[in-house]
Amino acid sequence: MSDANDILAANAAFYAAFAAGDFAALAALWADGDGISCIHPGWPAIVGRNAVIGSWRDILSNPARPQIVCAEPHAIVDRDHGHVVCLELVDGAALAAANHFARVGGAWRMVHHQSSAIAQMISPDDNADGRSLH
Amino acid sequence: MSDANDILAANAAFYAAFAAGDFAALAALWADGDGISCIHPGWPAIVGRNAVIGSWRDILSNPARPQIVCAEPHAIVDRDHGHVVCLELVDGAALAAANHFARVGGAWRMVHHQSSAIAQMISPDDNADGRSLH
Repeated sequence: MSDANDILAANAAFYAAFAAGDFAALAALWADGDGISCIHPGWPAIVGRNAVIGSWRDILSNPARPQIVCAEPHAIVDRDHGHVVCLELVDGAALAAANHFARVGGAWRMVHHQSSAIAQMISPDDNADGRSLH
Repeated sequence: MSDANDILAANAAFYAAFAAGDFAALAALWADGDGISCIHPGWPAIVGRNAVIGSWRDILSNPARPQIVCAEPHAIVDRDHGHVVCLELVDGAALAAANHFARVGGAWRMVHHQSSAIAQMISPDDNADGRSLH
């Protein structure tokens, strides 16, 4: 479970960097190069180091940004890649997020982040009612 | 670029299976085992083969489900993993999606899908205005 723990630690470092407004730490967590992408809540995908890191620079430069608390992180690891699904608690609302990491030089670096609003919290029992999710 | 083309083909097969209502084809595209996850629009994350595949069974069993057209797919490949970011056009609205794949036995199998509503289409120039995205 060491890889899972390491990915969970990288995931926690991502939210810690956000909470601290530490742009350098957040930028260093992302992989170098243009093989990274991000889908912010309500946004289309952005691709490439400049666009992704630039978006986070903009977000962290906003003193009115809300705090984000990561909850219920769950790591899935497969060889040199893994991702964490979690909740993001923002201003009393819950978002569903996935953070994807790749092992680069022995460290887990972020390659994709996507966070999206949860319309409502739904119990697992509600999954069986056959209604359209899309 | 063969891996990228192969991942784009797997991505296209995913949307073709959805359009055809072909649950068996869609289920076969997903990786076996419980190392898979999915975040449907407005939903919290679901994890594991039974939960993820079950959610797609429910969706495809709904005759009133909307059609989804994949647009502007862009593949990023890194060793035995890759993902496609794309738009999903659904009933005239655009969603932002990411489909993540792992190479298993020479085939690209889906390991994570996340699709989320786009609040509005925003031009790249709007990225620089410093407003909060979260």
